[in-house]
Amino acid sequence: MAGTPGPSPDAARKGEAVTAGSDTLVDGLVARLAPKAKSLIVTVYGDAIAHRGGNAALGSVIALLEPLGVAERTVRTSMFRLAQEGWLQPRAIGRRSDYRLTETGSRRFEAVHERIYRQAQRPWDGQWTIVATGPAPIDTAVRERLQRDLGWQGFGHLAGGVMVHPDHDEAALRALLAEVGHHVLVVRGPAASWVAPEVFDEVVRAGWDIARLAADYEAFLDTFRPLWAALQRESRIEPARGFAIRTLLMHGYRRAILRDPKLPDELMPHGWPGAAARALCRNLYRRVEAAAEAHVSAVLHTAEGPVPDASPAYFGRFGGLRTMAAQVGFEGEPSS
Amino acid sequence: MAGTPGPSPDAARKGEAVTAGSDTLVDGLVARLAPKAKSLIVTVYGDAIAHRGGNAALGSVIALLEPLGVAERTVRTSMFRLAQEGWLQPRAIGRRSDYRLTETGSRRFEAVHERIYRQAQRPWDGQWTIVATGPAPIDTAVRERLQRDLGWQGFGHLAGGVMVHPDHDEAALRALLAEVGHHVLVVRGPAASWVAPEVFDEVVRAGWDIARLAADYEAFLDTFRPLWAALQRESRIEPARGFAIRTLLMHGYRRAILRDPKLPDELMPHGWPGAAARALCRNLYRRVEAAAEAHVSAVLHTAEGPVPDASPAYFGRFGGLRTMAAQVGFEGEPSS
Repeated sequence: MAGTPGPSPDAARKGEAVTAGSDTLVDGLVARLAPKAKSLIVTVYGDAIAHRGGNAALGSVIALLEPLGVAERTVRTSMFRLAQEGWLQPRAIGRRSDYRLTETGSRRFEAVHERIYRQAQRPWDGQWTIVATGPAPIDTAVRERLQRDLGWQGFGHLAGGVMVHPDHDEAALRALLAEVGHHVLVVRGPAASWVAPEVFDEVVRAGWDIARLAADYEAFLDTFRPLWAALQRESRIEPARGFAIRTLLMHGYRRAILRDPKLPDELMPHGWPGAAARALCRNLYRRVEAAAEAHVSAVLHTAEGPVPDASPAYFGRFGGLRTMAAQVGFEGEPSS
Repeated sequence: MAGTPGPSPDAARKGEAVTAGSDTLVDGLVARLAPKAKSLIVTVYGDAIAHRGGNAALGSVIALLEPLGVAERTVRTSMFRLAQEGWLQPRAIGRRSDYRLTETGSRRFEAVHERIYRQAQRPWDGQWTIVATGPAPIDTAVRERLQRDLGWQGFGHLAGGVMVHPDHDEAALRALLAEVGHHVLVVRGPAASWVAPEVFDEVVRAGWDIARLAADYEAFLDTFRPLWAALQRESRIEPARGFAIRTLLMHGYRRAILRDPKLPDELMPHGWPGAAARALCRNLYRRVEAAAEAHVSAVLHTAEGPVPDASPAYFGRFGGLRTMAAQVGFEGEPSS
């Protein structure tokens, strides 16, 4: 594979043998992450099916997930539940079914994908958004729900009834407030130029549980750093195995970023493990994704036949996945 | 006097007789306002002495206050106390004393004068300043003092530990926070464009005691509206009487604005009495100030002789006090 540290020609010829031994590696990840099947399927729809048209025959999803050791029966049950929860829309064709990602499901992915696949954070503009839920009298239950939902959007507590974020998602905030229907004051602006720089650290420490967030990233790093070392020793990654690794990588990274309020890098402590986790995730993804896509191309289909090629946006993930030469050749063998 | 509704020629000729009867009017104001002598002297230094060099012989201050019925002994005691409190700096010259307004005293006046004499509020830029005292752990006593002082600067409560003002005095805020030495987050910015307009009313209602403030202004209007009607019937205002009225007017207006947080007009309810009070104060001031200044010119002196003419800034009070012709002639009789 172009752009990655080259395997020795000997190792390349012995590809199958290397692959055989490495099931241990996937098994170890599965044991460590203990993913739920439903959660894995959501990951797969977001990471592997959405950019291939968003539709898949049930049988092909079962085949896709086989390298992860998920049993057919478990996939069937999980897909049924995901349809009930509004993620997937089933369509019966004879005795078979296609499951298409719904509008709702797509929207849910968008925010997560923006966080996972962008290469780096944009520079912070130095402004803060302050949301005061208090001016109008508010029912306790409504306020608690509002604060919880603002928390999910990454807002931290500045004071009772007042939440803050340095770089929030304006559209998501607006949608939430429209949904809640309660009057709040939302102000965005820079801190006064004469505010002491330590104040920003104090706002971050008071508003968010940074230690817990750091622990989430450390757990991710502990799990996936050995994988990087192991993959450095491999010449060629077998498609099914690449797919299993990529899916588990996305599963682990989604879990790590789950509670991340996406504060600008400028506000995080030195040596913040979130930055290392992002770098490791990107490197691993680029290492295995061509193999993973080969598995998708080989297995995934709908009632109309094979799924479309990956959309151009796919190749922009993590700031660009491949060189041009590699893009042309990615369906089959590595071009190098 | 140029620019005010003209008296009839008859009334003008009977000026003295009208003046004689009007002591009742000053007495009525004094009875109603019940001003303390020390407070009156502060008003006089701010309104009548500061723009004439800021220095005055004790004897001339006694003469200046005579039309207000303040006894010589009371003036002496009050001046002594004001010197102790840092407002005035005495200087002995033989057996007499000059009292000069101190730097501290001048600074204290500046903020008040800016509020009293400016013609109208500048348009609001639509931004809010939010001060969060909470991010760093803070001692309860320090927080309470900080919130009280912010309250004096006009800030209202947005939530526990968070105060807000739409149009605060940045220099005063910065000075206060430097003095307190506690870390706070200060953010200034516009509300999001999609925030419901009712939210601003709710912020104002929750943050400030608008009813009490309105009552202060209504009390001022009740006291001074009859004065305006009475002065309309007079042809010429005698200097000592003009001075007494102007001083009581400033005393009453300062009391009325004492608790005013100076919110932009755009945020106040319709028919806000603060606007009427401002208009009445301006009209009364322009009606009597030439007479009042004539009293100051005739009476006020220092060890070096008469005080300087009024500084140019004086004529800019309330958006401009006189026409050019009237300015030239103001030391003596009204030019009309």
